[in-house]
Amino acid sequence: MAVYTEVTDEALAAFLTDYDIGSMVAFRGIAEGVENSNFSLRTTAGDFILTLYEKRVDPAELPWFLGLMEHLSQRGIGCPLPVRGRDGVALRHLCGRHSAITTFLPGVWPRRVRLEHCAPLGSALAALHVAGADYAPTRWNALGPHGWRPLLERCRMRVDEVQAGLAAELETALDAILTSWPVALPVGHIHADLFPDNVFFLDGRLSGLIDFYFAATDLLAYDIAVCLNAWCFESDFSFNVTKARALLRAYDEVRALSEAERAALPVLCQGAAIRFLLTRLYDWLNTPEGALVTRKDPLEYVRRLRFHLTARDEHAYGI
Amino acid sequence: MAVYTEVTDEALAAFLTDYDIGSMVAFRGIAEGVENSNFSLRTTAGDFILTLYEKRVDPAELPWFLGLMEHLSQRGIGCPLPVRGRDGVALRHLCGRHSAITTFLPGVWPRRVRLEHCAPLGSALAALHVAGADYAPTRWNALGPHGWRPLLERCRMRVDEVQAGLAAELETALDAILTSWPVALPVGHIHADLFPDNVFFLDGRLSGLIDFYFAATDLLAYDIAVCLNAWCFESDFSFNVTKARALLRAYDEVRALSEAERAALPVLCQGAAIRFLLTRLYDWLNTPEGALVTRKDPLEYVRRLRFHLTARDEHAYGI
Repeated sequence: MAVYTEVTDEALAAFLTDYDIGSMVAFRGIAEGVENSNFSLRTTAGDFILTLYEKRVDPAELPWFLGLMEHLSQRGIGCPLPVRGRDGVALRHLCGRHSAITTFLPGVWPRRVRLEHCAPLGSALAALHVAGADYAPTRWNALGPHGWRPLLERCRMRVDEVQAGLAAELETALDAILTSWPVALPVGHIHADLFPDNVFFLDGRLSGLIDFYFAATDLLAYDIAVCLNAWCFESDFSFNVTKARALLRAYDEVRALSEAERAALPVLCQGAAIRFLLTRLYDWLNTPEGALVTRKDPLEYVRRLRFHLTARDEHAYGI
Repeated sequence: MAVYTEVTDEALAAFLTDYDIGSMVAFRGIAEGVENSNFSLRTTAGDFILTLYEKRVDPAELPWFLGLMEHLSQRGIGCPLPVRGRDGVALRHLCGRHSAITTFLPGVWPRRVRLEHCAPLGSALAALHVAGADYAPTRWNALGPHGWRPLLERCRMRVDEVQAGLAAELETALDAILTSWPVALPVGHIHADLFPDNVFFLDGRLSGLIDFYFAATDLLAYDIAVCLNAWCFESDFSFNVTKARALLRAYDEVRALSEAERAALPVLCQGAAIRFLLTRLYDWLNTPEGALVTRKDPLEYVRRLRFHLTARDEHAYGI
């Protein structure tokens, strides 16, 4: 799962001397996360997460991610705060990888989403959007709408292996989504991957957001659409409009949604569904048969997409 | 790697009410370990490890393992102490699995073995053997010498896929090992899997031993042979006799090795090499091609076995 690079105790001890966070007490690989190697690190000064950035992350983008986390954390958003070394630099090198230490967030991610998670999620997402407004650098969203057709092209010859007729269904849906994609909505920095395993709760309160490595500058309301997909479907793929309403209302209390944003919810949700559908489809077709790694089923997002295609307006989402 | 069963926050919170260890603060899957699901659990009372026992562990044997850990911990061995629930029971159920909470051990396992690790390892192994002496229940070692021929039989038709001529080489070696296997050496409870990833160090001292789920009742000196295989070869499979000497001398200071045990070291080391060779071989032949799980190369143990077959007596191990 999530330890691709081993860190020797000597290398780690030497690495820690560049910081002012005491000496090592414990060090364990973390099973969660799929892109990078993550370790839980305890020192005499407290608890931290050590991340080694693996090949799928572009090193040139790391300062943007770390800068965003620092910016958000300084504005009161519960997210990992990159820890700077004695020389003031947070992005460093360890075992041939770019690496960073961040603060440890308490809490547990919800394995099963309940209604009471959704309002805190909506509030936290809006707070993230508001707090990010004055972070000046921008990052193009490679997995935004401009990236979807190329992704489908790369899968197209084999899409029907997954389900007969799927290629045509996706072509039609994608054409419609891109044609009606909203362009004049408020833009800002979005998390873009705020699934339950990236949101921690503690004692019934949201305690933190993690994993900003898909964050980008894009339509703020698209981030809500990602969450509606990730949090508001039941395990039978029925849409729970009560959860959606709780999420949207709580969001709106912190950052008011414009009429245009509300009206765009169906197409934004369709877009978010097709975005996760396409990356899962690509991984599905490119993961060796019999591999023990869990391939996430792309068809789950076909089910979600079909729901969103039936949504006539924002009322389908409970508002 | 090591989270096969997901634990919902509700299930975990309910589970914790059976204990007197406070409420949940943080909960993360641990990447290490291959047999069971392991989680790092922080509560308001401290740090713990939650283990869910997966299918490869026989539930009937769990009380023996947990009893041994408790016994050793009470005698000052740094190992996980099973935490009993309010009803006095340590072995419980969670999410359809047998499960247990144990104390958290500080330290880091050495990714690269250095000479200074070997004497503390030898002392700790001997201390474990001494402390285990008055733990009355016994556990038959299914992966001891009686298990090796059946394991080879299950692979035999395909052994030469791994390396031409390997089947014949292993047959010959196994015959010789079983013929000269010592029977009159001191018996006790052995760890049987004391590889570097099961031994933690902190500030240059050995801080704990973990993962007792291969422990069994067998020749004590066989446990030393496992360690000589696991700790004393360099990455080019050359044998580091200085490391072996440090390990053996430190062991001998805590629990004196008999003449018979010393004399048996070559065949014990051959046996330990073939035991890990055979389980790796079995896994190698039975893991799907292209699987992303790391198959451990059985040929590494062919190299070790060949070294031990050249050992004329205990002097080959530096004593």
